[in-house]
Amino acid sequence: MITIKDVAKRADVAPSTVSRVISNHPAISEKTRDKVRRVMDEMGYMPNVSARRLVTKQSNTIGLLLKTASKEMTQNPFFTDVLMSISKVCKDNHYSTVVSTSMNEQELLSEVSELVNSNAVDGFILLYSKSNDPVVSYLQSINFPFVILGKKLSPLSNEIYIDNDNVMAAYQLTDYMINLGHKNIVFIAENSTYAVNEDRVLGYSRACQQAGLMPEVFEGAAGTEEVSGIIAEIKTMLPRPTAIITSDSMMNLNVLSELYQQQLRIPDDIQTATFNDSYFNESACPPQTVVNIYPESLGAEAGSSLIEYLNHPEMIKRSIIIPTSIIERSSTKPLKERVL
Amino acid sequence: MITIKDVAKRADVAPSTVSRVISNHPAISEKTRDKVRRVMDEMGYMPNVSARRLVTKQSNTIGLLLKTASKEMTQNPFFTDVLMSISKVCKDNHYSTVVSTSMNEQELLSEVSELVNSNAVDGFILLYSKSNDPVVSYLQSINFPFVILGKKLSPLSNEIYIDNDNVMAAYQLTDYMINLGHKNIVFIAENSTYAVNEDRVLGYSRACQQAGLMPEVFEGAAGTEEVSGIIAEIKTMLPRPTAIITSDSMMNLNVLSELYQQQLRIPDDIQTATFNDSYFNESACPPQTVVNIYPESLGAEAGSSLIEYLNHPEMIKRSIIIPTSIIERSSTKPLKERVL
Repeated sequence: MITIKDVAKRADVAPSTVSRVISNHPAISEKTRDKVRRVMDEMGYMPNVSARRLVTKQSNTIGLLLKTASKEMTQNPFFTDVLMSISKVCKDNHYSTVVSTSMNEQELLSEVSELVNSNAVDGFILLYSKSNDPVVSYLQSINFPFVILGKKLSPLSNEIYIDNDNVMAAYQLTDYMINLGHKNIVFIAENSTYAVNEDRVLGYSRACQQAGLMPEVFEGAAGTEEVSGIIAEIKTMLPRPTAIITSDSMMNLNVLSELYQQQLRIPDDIQTATFNDSYFNESACPPQTVVNIYPESLGAEAGSSLIEYLNHPEMIKRSIIIPTSIIERSSTKPLKERVL
Repeated sequence: MITIKDVAKRADVAPSTVSRVISNHPAISEKTRDKVRRVMDEMGYMPNVSARRLVTKQSNTIGLLLKTASKEMTQNPFFTDVLMSISKVCKDNHYSTVVSTSMNEQELLSEVSELVNSNAVDGFILLYSKSNDPVVSYLQSINFPFVILGKKLSPLSNEIYIDNDNVMAAYQLTDYMINLGHKNIVFIAENSTYAVNEDRVLGYSRACQQAGLMPEVFEGAAGTEEVSGIIAEIKTMLPRPTAIITSDSMMNLNVLSELYQQQLRIPDDIQTATFNDSYFNESACPPQTVVNIYPESLGAEAGSSLIEYLNHPEMIKRSIIIPTSIIERSSTKPLKERVL
């Protein structure tokens, strides 16, 4: 069996340097780190996980990072489903979890750095993906293990991403609505810089264009007066839209509430569909057609990928795409021709 | 002070057998376990929590136990809010968490015993309270730290309970409806053996009786055909009920969906109110009047009480009652006299 000493000898460094490379110590230069890793790979060296843990005081804890710990985020069933499935995988592998509680990006960065510096976690799962994320830059700069549950934003990125194909999911949902006979479908999106919304808007727009229809995208913040204004505007559009697709379940709830208050009945006056299935879509008035994005699978893959990486830091960081499917409910139905 | 050796001598077993009984080792026969436990009780032996921890390597992890890890439970915003606030307190005190994933009581007991025996957790928070709970009996028998987020079921119990006064909360909500002019209010309760439902039914019944009204309680399982049947039955009652109080938010969602499908409009045809505020009650069709039970405070108190107890095992196990308040929304309003 190959030991740390063997690696140290071949790489011409002290054994303590090899240990530090294995434990991702920040004081090791990139040059040394690369050299030692290369030798480890060449010799087929595998760190002994149990022994390493004894030495490095691993926490056996995984940090879960939310884009914000706001109620709108944490009460979202997507979050809950993902959290529960990550927790299950962690528990089965003797890991526990801590969840970020920051309300904005700046706070989150200090929270992450505190968790790292107090050795509170062995790795992170980011439950969001956004461009130029300072958290990602920080974790990369100290070579700290993490997995992103969200979109791979750069083809050059060498990180582990777990995601659905949200362009495809939105394309399929829009196409399904077009096949029901809709010619005027609007899309209401949460206004944000997060990749998932952009991809869903893109998939919707492509499906519309391909069918020779004009895409119409409204942006607003869920839980605000903006949604009320959007619905009022939709009511006055000519020809009047016959269907609304929303970028996620929480926005959809808002839209349903506004449609109810502005006395548009579903599915007779207007039809609705959204993304991510949950108890709330199933019990909505009426039950909602949704794209099932399988949050449990996303969570389980994120958890097991990170744990696998923690145990085998030399592994290839492969990304995983979970397929989606449409669940048809009574918020959509074949459209009868209407005289407007 | 009585030691393991004293117990072993009196019970006529080896000291290691006593240790094994304390740690619930599976290789101990029921007969031996009962005998040793009886002797421990007779002699007033209490395992020294701090000493045990020094030996057993603390995990700095808290286990959160759900009555079941079903979607209906985990997608309940009450659970999410409590979980997030416990997580925050834990993180601030350098504890992480593991969440139970069992789907029933029998599984939960083995899950708990496995967490205890693998030293995976230092203590538990039970997010439910029920009579004759085998999990509570087990934890008491091994003197393992826990806190119950729920009702104190026996006045003699010497455990830490964090709860609202649910009898009072339901009494106040019913009284509020009576003051709006309602004379026929029905209560739809989740059929279960959990204390919270029983207390809410009790508070409702008391308020009705005190006002000279006849309480009418329906029981059903949320998410089933039963709820549909209950609404159909309510429609045929004479005089027809003018208000429905539901035992919790998830049941309320079901009731709203059924009312919508059976074409009873809120608040004009019938009014509704429930317990526990969330995004889903705020965005319901129409927004729902609820009793705010302050899940964040319940979670924060449960977390900090357990951590305080872990650090000070000698402390007095005081229970905490969090007050409640009514949030009025458009699902309720003063009732106009109707000719039925």
